[in-house]
Amino acid sequence: MHHLTKILETHPQATVNEALATCIEQCLSCGLTCTSCADACLAEEQVTQLVRCIRLNLDCADICDATGRALTRQTSWDPGLARSILETCAEACRVCAQECEQHSDHHEHCRICAESCRRCEKACDDLRRSIGA
Amino acid sequence: MHHLTKILETHPQATVNEALATCIEQCLSCGLTCTSCADACLAEEQVTQLVRCIRLNLDCADICDATGRALTRQTSWDPGLARSILETCAEACRVCAQECEQHSDHHEHCRICAESCRRCEKACDDLRRSIGA
Amino acid sequence: MHHLTKILETHPQATVNEALATCIEQCLSCGLTCTSCADACLAEEQVTQLVRCIRLNLDCADICDATGRALTRQTSWDPGLARSILETCAEACRVCAQECEQHSDHHEHCRICAESCRRCEKACDDLRRSIGA
Amino acid sequence: MHHLTKILETHPQATVNEALATCIEQCLSCGLTCTSCADACLAEEQVTQLVRCIRLNLDCADICDATGRALTRQTSWDPGLARSILETCAEACRVCAQECEQHSDHHEHCRICAESCRRCEKACDDLRRSIGA
Repeated sequence: MHHLTKILETHPQATVNEALATCIEQCLSCGLTCTSCADACLAEEQVTQLVRCIRLNLDCADICDATGRALTRQTSWDPGLARSILETCAEACRVCAQECEQHSDHHEHCRICAESCRRCEKACDDLRRSIGA
Repeated sequence: MHHLTKILETHPQATVNEALATCIEQCLSCGLTCTSCADACLAEEQVTQLVRCIRLNLDCADICDATGRALTRQTSWDPGLARSILETCAEACRVCAQECEQHSDHHEHCRICAESCRRCEKACDDLRRSIGA
Repeated sequence: MHHLTKILETHPQATVNEALATCIEQCLSCGLTCTSCADACLAEEQVTQLVRCIRLNLDCADICDATGRALTRQTSWDPGLARSILETCAEACRVCAQECEQHSDHHEHCRICAESCRRCEKACDDLRRSIGA
Repeated sequence: MHHLTKILETHPQATVNEALATCIEQCLSCGLTCTSCADACLAEEQVTQLVRCIRLNLDCADICDATGRALTRQTSWDPGLARSILETCAEACRVCAQECEQHSDHHEHCRICAESCRRCEKACDDLRRSIGA
């Protein structure tokens, strides 16, 4: 987090605030966690019960990674596009968390992933509100 | 396109239709075109006038690539998430096209990229409507 | 392919040749096919026999997509880095093809994916040789 | 890092060690830093002197992100493919670091990015050696 804020602040027109830095960090963390959860699900004996979980993990990883990259860019920031991305990322996290939560009692990776998705969903919602509807 | 439809149709629960196949193809094509336009802009002498164009190209490439991947997945399809992704992708294409169109007279890559973005925007809108609001 | 060559040729220092255009096209096509095959495998009843296939599909998709992007960039081209990327992409395609080939008789998506991986492996090898060892 | 190790350890066949966890973390961190440095370079008045830096930043970001994802997957691990990816990622980091180092006196983002690339290069080399040539 400290490292992240440091590099963002070196931008010639740096506009970084806490909500932005938190959101980028949560996107990266959630992207990694979803990639990891998909892979752990794939190695479970009951993989057939985790098919929807894997699919949503893969979507959520792709969307979180794209969102983290777009938010990292401060040059010629477009608030309308940022809002739309944040809405989609929050939705991907919400849907993935709902599925992971159903497997949390049986699979620790799903429990951790659900928590990571919920944190990222909240960070996206918070940042979107701070940009203004 | 033929190749794309062929692989999509091998899915055990294949639900591929023309709007879906067209949209995936446009996402991939627009993602590549935006990566290429960003790189061509970077090599232009007047790069300082193309800074906003490069930034939006990079965002659009990331979003188109993530959208193309998510749409390719037919297992446990979530219509709500698909709609949200399609809305964001259409928005990214629209904003990028608007910027590229301003440079179309001076840079052929911007002209081609604007056209590609507009085609992808339309394909996303068409697919979103076919899923239902 | 025609569209791809057209945008690549608009670069101010365009150096596009047939081996490069073919390789970029195969990377994109293979990336998509691997994403699609992973998803189709996931929906098969015998998913437990396709676990290694899904994993290698996911790796191959990520590597093909990154390779396709890097090759698309013509500004300040670095031949050493290009060679290294091409070697890794060919390896990812080779390993994924070997696995898919073992399921080709039972799953049409694996048969198509194996062919796509072999074409991409060859295109990477051809381009690497044309750059020089 | 703690979070990363925690999710990796929930894999049914977890084989996570310190070299692996460090490398994944450095890939993610370097991918973000390169995306951020490319964007900061783009906003500099002397952007024309940073064209090669931006290009290598974009390549390095794509390769680090793909490498981080591939390393995160523990299911059906393929050591030969892992070694090849790690070699390419180390090369991308090395080339990008060399370029960033030339701008470190003038641009703090290039200085931070060069350091991040060198850390990731080392982590890739360390992990590759631990897998065995």
